[in-house]
Amino acid sequence: MPVPPPNLNPPFNIVRLSHAELRVTDLGRARAFHADLVGLQVTHEDAGTVYLRGMEERGHHCLILRQAEAAGVGHLGFKVWEEGDLDRLHAFFTERGLPASWVERPFMGRVLAVRDPWGVPLEFYAHMDRLPPIHQQYGLYRGVKPLRIDHFNLFASDVDGVMAFYTDLGFRLTEYTADEESGRTWAAWMHRKGGVHDIAFTNGTGPRLHHVAFWVPTPLNIIDLLDVMSTSGYLARIERGPGRHGISNAFFLYVRDDDGHRTELYCSDYQTVDPDLEPIRWDLKDPQRQTLWGAPAPRSWFEEGAVFEGAALVESGLKATPIVAP
Amino acid sequence: MPVPPPNLNPPFNIVRLSHAELRVTDLGRARAFHADLVGLQVTHEDAGTVYLRGMEERGHHCLILRQAEAAGVGHLGFKVWEEGDLDRLHAFFTERGLPASWVERPFMGRVLAVRDPWGVPLEFYAHMDRLPPIHQQYGLYRGVKPLRIDHFNLFASDVDGVMAFYTDLGFRLTEYTADEESGRTWAAWMHRKGGVHDIAFTNGTGPRLHHVAFWVPTPLNIIDLLDVMSTSGYLARIERGPGRHGISNAFFLYVRDDDGHRTELYCSDYQTVDPDLEPIRWDLKDPQRQTLWGAPAPRSWFEEGAVFEGAALVESGLKATPIVAP
Amino acid sequence: MPVPPPNLNPPFNIVRLSHAELRVTDLGRARAFHADLVGLQVTHEDAGTVYLRGMEERGHHCLILRQAEAAGVGHLGFKVWEEGDLDRLHAFFTERGLPASWVERPFMGRVLAVRDPWGVPLEFYAHMDRLPPIHQQYGLYRGVKPLRIDHFNLFASDVDGVMAFYTDLGFRLTEYTADEESGRTWAAWMHRKGGVHDIAFTNGTGPRLHHVAFWVPTPLNIIDLLDVMSTSGYLARIERGPGRHGISNAFFLYVRDDDGHRTELYCSDYQTVDPDLEPIRWDLKDPQRQTLWGAPAPRSWFEEGAVFEGAALVESGLKATPIVAP
Amino acid sequence: MPVPPPNLNPPFNIVRLSHAELRVTDLGRARAFHADLVGLQVTHEDAGTVYLRGMEERGHHCLILRQAEAAGVGHLGFKVWEEGDLDRLHAFFTERGLPASWVERPFMGRVLAVRDPWGVPLEFYAHMDRLPPIHQQYGLYRGVKPLRIDHFNLFASDVDGVMAFYTDLGFRLTEYTADEESGRTWAAWMHRKGGVHDIAFTNGTGPRLHHVAFWVPTPLNIIDLLDVMSTSGYLARIERGPGRHGISNAFFLYVRDDDGHRTELYCSDYQTVDPDLEPIRWDLKDPQRQTLWGAPAPRSWFEEGAVFEGAALVESGLKATPIVAP
Repeated sequence: MPVPPPNLNPPFNIVRLSHAELRVTDLGRARAFHADLVGLQVTHEDAGTVYLRGMEERGHHCLILRQAEAAGVGHLGFKVWEEGDLDRLHAFFTERGLPASWVERPFMGRVLAVRDPWGVPLEFYAHMDRLPPIHQQYGLYRGVKPLRIDHFNLFASDVDGVMAFYTDLGFRLTEYTADEESGRTWAAWMHRKGGVHDIAFTNGTGPRLHHVAFWVPTPLNIIDLLDVMSTSGYLARIERGPGRHGISNAFFLYVRDDDGHRTELYCSDYQTVDPDLEPIRWDLKDPQRQTLWGAPAPRSWFEEGAVFEGAALVESGLKATPIVAP
Repeated sequence: MPVPPPNLNPPFNIVRLSHAELRVTDLGRARAFHADLVGLQVTHEDAGTVYLRGMEERGHHCLILRQAEAAGVGHLGFKVWEEGDLDRLHAFFTERGLPASWVERPFMGRVLAVRDPWGVPLEFYAHMDRLPPIHQQYGLYRGVKPLRIDHFNLFASDVDGVMAFYTDLGFRLTEYTADEESGRTWAAWMHRKGGVHDIAFTNGTGPRLHHVAFWVPTPLNIIDLLDVMSTSGYLARIERGPGRHGISNAFFLYVRDDDGHRTELYCSDYQTVDPDLEPIRWDLKDPQRQTLWGAPAPRSWFEEGAVFEGAALVESGLKATPIVAP
Repeated sequence: MPVPPPNLNPPFNIVRLSHAELRVTDLGRARAFHADLVGLQVTHEDAGTVYLRGMEERGHHCLILRQAEAAGVGHLGFKVWEEGDLDRLHAFFTERGLPASWVERPFMGRVLAVRDPWGVPLEFYAHMDRLPPIHQQYGLYRGVKPLRIDHFNLFASDVDGVMAFYTDLGFRLTEYTADEESGRTWAAWMHRKGGVHDIAFTNGTGPRLHHVAFWVPTPLNIIDLLDVMSTSGYLARIERGPGRHGISNAFFLYVRDDDGHRTELYCSDYQTVDPDLEPIRWDLKDPQRQTLWGAPAPRSWFEEGAVFEGAALVESGLKATPIVAP
Repeated sequence: MPVPPPNLNPPFNIVRLSHAELRVTDLGRARAFHADLVGLQVTHEDAGTVYLRGMEERGHHCLILRQAEAAGVGHLGFKVWEEGDLDRLHAFFTERGLPASWVERPFMGRVLAVRDPWGVPLEFYAHMDRLPPIHQQYGLYRGVKPLRIDHFNLFASDVDGVMAFYTDLGFRLTEYTADEESGRTWAAWMHRKGGVHDIAFTNGTGPRLHHVAFWVPTPLNIIDLLDVMSTSGYLARIERGPGRHGISNAFFLYVRDDDGHRTELYCSDYQTVDPDLEPIRWDLKDPQRQTLWGAPAPRSWFEEGAVFEGAALVESGLKATPIVAP
């Protein structure tokens, strides 16, 4: 199945991914992980919720931690260019018979809450409270020095279908994994903001959130985080890395909080603003697409993910045997 | 004079800066500097011209070196989203009585050559030949490992005027220097592609090109270049740095080729895709805007630049005494 | 079995490890690996031999590659303080009934060739040809930018015995692995020159050379090497890493040449010149001693090593089940 | 005047520089600078004194801050190999008619306090309290991540004389600046522990302490410190750098505390354990000896230093015009 051509003139302008809401079972522990250890800045907190941002972000938050009975994902947030885009998105989802409603969210203007065809809860907005810059308050930098949210990665039961839908939304493909045997697409990296991705999809029981990624300054910040985690009680929370992805070319590390929410620390992918950027094709049989340097990922990385509230899980028909570390 | 509000819906979509044509008096020496020392990849060369690209670029070139009698700048190139943008740009310049004509350029589709009101030669195109990716051919990386062109910086005799014109073109302001005494804007950083700038303007006799900047992976690559330059006959070509700019927050180094063309090696600024990004204001009296760490720049950095072929120089009415190193 | 007390006043002064002679079956391929890829500088070569040094070394060589029928290790070289030390070493080995003879070696003064009790061929000298400094000829730096030889690591069938013998030679223990079950020492790191080790011994069929290590500037140089190896035909030569050792605290990578000779690229251990430095004890059951961040090593790393010409292999009585990656 | 030959068999074994006692006029501010900002670990404090160590040091302290009426230097400390060395040093100083006495110091065994011929107060010891390792408690790392004390640098009114005296003490020359006009040595770098220096001397009104240097992991840690200092009220405390020294090849930064005590943050010099290491000669007229990359140092760096309690200042007869930044 050939990948879809880029949709260069979508009817609305989704600027970038913006934030994720994670449901956590111990808010204090989650705050310790994401703020004290990883280094995101707390911008607001109350009894049941903590809001955080990266060091160069001016929007109020890129991560919401919400106390809940069970771990899961509340929604994935995206910023649009202008208010009119929200109305056009409302029409887009409604016309397709998909859930779409206006909801109230703290620190934000109008918010459109929708579900994609697989049930993933997405929220769009044009205005979020803006905060003063802190990127030059270097005394505040902590942990891995996370600068900004970079992307979401999801398990999808039908990557070809998902890729077509998000192409309609204006997301453009940068890299993908083709499964020659089945003729299907195994995984797809799609962007809006000019990097390798705002959102990626990998074949598997879905929809589930695989990880949220944050951009960090250099590989040495990731090494610093590894040193701290491995000597302060977080050794078991290191899941995979450090390494370089073949796909995206990024230097990466995957860590997990107490609820299993996976965070990728990520740097050094490349600029993709050209409308005629040719997607890079990787073969499912090429192990370097996952790790350029050859070290396999652990089984948990291939199998575990977080469910979205209210989205039914569907198994993928596509199967493969991943090469895993024990 | 207040800075102009962002122009969020310009009639055309300029995607990003693309390339510069530099006139050089010794092509072999210029090639040695930009390819062998700095590390740009030669993509084509003939008797009088060398074309180069950065390691992650797929477009045919980001720098053209052209043998000439005298040093100077041929033109500054920009990529637009689609062919229709070129026609709309043609109308924009023609309606304002500015030069605008269609020209032939190797490796490119239709090219629109114009002059801005101060005579700066700009060229726009939608299609340039695309080359296979080489960003993962690590054996090819050389010198400072330049990944892509990042921005142009120009001296301008009327920064407020220039800022208004480029705002009409859709460039959005990210940072600027205000001169409280005169009520004028001293310098302006404006972007299209989502970083701090595609083009910047600083008060001074203009129009002249101050520098072309290339994005590099980390500050350590800049340190490597300094070590090589200082021990292989290029010591006098190091002009300023390393340091961190207050404005843009980038880590920088300025070097100059045999004709005095200034190249900035640059990394670690921040993402600016939000349409409601608030420009950061710096006061002309704040020396940290230039160098966060306090070391002054040499006089040459404030005064010297390259002329654009066919553009008359105008002195700025605004004067200030820069803090310089000897 | 308690570790031996430090021998603070040995009868001779071994200054440091100096060089290794590796037997290789394809000299051209070995030269490509160690010089072109890793970046050691060739200081002399003839039909059957290549001599190399690190970028900051003034001695003529730290590595000798010698064409041979079969892969193996010729000898391990050590530099002593003065000529008299050679005579005192000659007496030391002779008195113990160990082989000791004076041999001729190119580029060197008097050379004493001996065997330790397990048959490891050691060579001692006071004078090797000195070469002009090149550490500030940055244009010559290549590959991982190896600065100097750092240490040898050997499999030993009787680590407690070996540790006692090398303590008599004046080597001082910095870190060791204790096997509580057997009461034996599993592994020992011993130094002369003020780092964590000049030589280390690990339990296993021995004597065999596990690896020779070179000191590199920063972890980013190791990441650079990984990128180059994985994209230029050397992917299968990456064996383990990058990572941080618990023992030594060093950042490491293990790579192997075509004959399987293992090279460690190593940086950031610590200074050990104090005579009262307390050795750090690690328990055999603590997996962080090998990899602070938790990723297991591959089986080959635990099992494979290079034989010393003329030394009979002895199996160790101590057995353990390593935690390995597949 | 030729430099003295190395003294390869001194009658005592000075292992390394160990610590400095700085007199400060505001202990709280000094503690904030050296502990909170630079990142040394406080190991003991009382009403009038703070003791600190680097992250990899096991000795109790490498820096003592002592509240005093006026800024100055109490003494410079050195560790010897064994108790007998102290007695031999006592004899050495006494035979030369120099002050030498046994003093009591907290956290230490026998301490020999002496003056060198120019009045510099030196203290020697074999035993200082040992502390548990913290180099793998990465959660404790702060600021520039200082690992260990590296060297002292002093102004000396007679560098040739000083060099001869410290050669008698067993210090070995690694690099020096020759003033061809006067035939004198302008500056000398001398070591015991196997790096470029434990102590260096530069021509000038002396004796005065120019700086104490600490070893840090990589240049990026120095860049981090610059970012923090320049944005948290310490901008004026940045004196010189970052840069690379020609002499020593080290990457450096000089900062100053509120009393003007100068600290160098320093990394990446080279190993000097070979007894036949040839000293590198630099000409006084070569500006790259100070800064390989060419940027001049500020005047304060050439002129300002801290006095030693009880040592009379002598002007040097040698004069030169430094190349300075304004």
